Amino acid sequence: MDIKVIAFDADDTLFINEPYFEETEKKFCGLMEDYLSHQGLSAEVFKTQIANLPLYGYGIKSYILSMIETAIAVSNGTVTSKHIERILDLGKELLQKPIELIDGVEATLAALHGNYKLVVATKGDLKDQQRKLHDSGLGHYFHHIEVMADKEALNYEKLLGRLDIKASEFMMIGNSLKSDVLPVLQVGGYACHVPFRTTWAHERIDHEIVHDKFTVLTNIIDVLPLLAK
Amino acid sequence: MDIKVIAFDADDTLFINEPYFEETEKKFCGLMEDYLSHQGLSAEVFKTQIANLPLYGYGIKSYILSMIETAIAVSNGTVTSKHIERILDLGKELLQKPIELIDGVEATLAALHGNYKLVVATKGDLKDQQRKLHDSGLGHYFHHIEVMADKEALNYEKLLGRLDIKASEFMMIGNSLKSDVLPVLQVGGYACHVPFRTTWAHERIDHEIVHDKFTVLTNIIDVLPLLAK
Repeated sequence: MDIKVIAFDADDTLFINEPYFEETEKKFCGLMEDYLSHQGLSAEVFKTQIANLPLYGYGIKSYILSMIETAIAVSNGTVTSKHIERILDLGKELLQKPIELIDGVEATLAALHGNYKLVVATKGDLKDQQRKLHDSGLGHYFHHIEVMADKEALNYEKLLGRLDIKASEFMMIGNSLKSDVLPVLQVGGYACHVPFRTTWAHERIDHEIVHDKFTVLTNIIDVLPLLAK
Repeated sequence: MDIKVIAFDADDTLFINEPYFEETEKKFCGLMEDYLSHQGLSAEVFKTQIANLPLYGYGIKSYILSMIETAIAVSNGTVTSKHIERILDLGKELLQKPIELIDGVEATLAALHGNYKLVVATKGDLKDQQRKLHDSGLGHYFHHIEVMADKEALNYEKLLGRLDIKASEFMMIGNSLKSDVLPVLQVGGYACHVPFRTTWAHERIDHEIVHDKFTVLTNIIDVLPLLAK
């Protein structure tokens, strides 16, 4: 391996994210339970999110807008503006959640820093991702943050162009097989999967990956011996 | 001048934007005119937007969320969810507005392309800005698009770092003195102001700028003789 740039996914790779979304959705379901079951509400929110993805993209603001749209739809337009106000508040809470680093992250970055160019490659709201990176105290390890509209092969190719490196000099580390692994392998880069305890339905895939540039890490710090090989 | 990179603001520099926001706000004011005057509503939306800026950042999704919050506040929570639904629709319309290029833009880019590295440097939603650049048909002129959380001097310094150039090799062209000119001059770069017929209140400044690296252009194409000097 002749890796020059290592890119890290942020949410649920560097710090905890999905559990906060799940917590918010639980509150949303509690708020709207007079209209539909929790399971039914979650399914409707997800459906609305996916339908809005081409227009809204990823991130918390998109999520809030989709929750509001869902609340109006499942209530047949009878939901009160007090409920909508509460949903806005849930969104603002979510945008201010404390940053909880995932075990092994800081030690890994400290060991790699100086030997590789480290970048963050993430989806979502630019403002929110910058805030989280700042609050995480990890910002100084990274050359910069790349917020991508989507993590498809084409987006990774553009990223390689901007970084001015070959695919074989690039490694991506993340918790999503769909976003952090498959498209990176597709363009010829190295990919490491660090599974997180919970994964958003949209990021799940149902098949195994076998590839000579692919590694599953139990903890992110296991990338150190891998790179030393 | 030894310019290597020329960065272009997008909204109201490459293509029309603010008139679409004004059109949307007019519809919002019409929708809510039982509660407050149009002028009063506009003032409230603006106040809410500015208050939410640290959490939401710029862009259409932030704007929709702030309109919903304003609608609930000015109606003392009595606004119906039909109104909220209409606001969501206004936002979706705004996200799908046709792209209208500003006069002179395409000829300017065609003349500069190949002689300079051209980038787009803009605020707002990444997804939305990428969509607009794609729909504009201008994408192929640009090396890449930089979506910035804010256009302050520090953000431009980071941009220069990513581009790996000196400030004296950088020129920014845009319609906002506050975002595209002042911070660029502050970090030592060249800045061109191309005034657009209308400017969002948040982007206005009330003093004149005199600086040897600053030029006002009547039309964007006037940058060509300036660079040829």
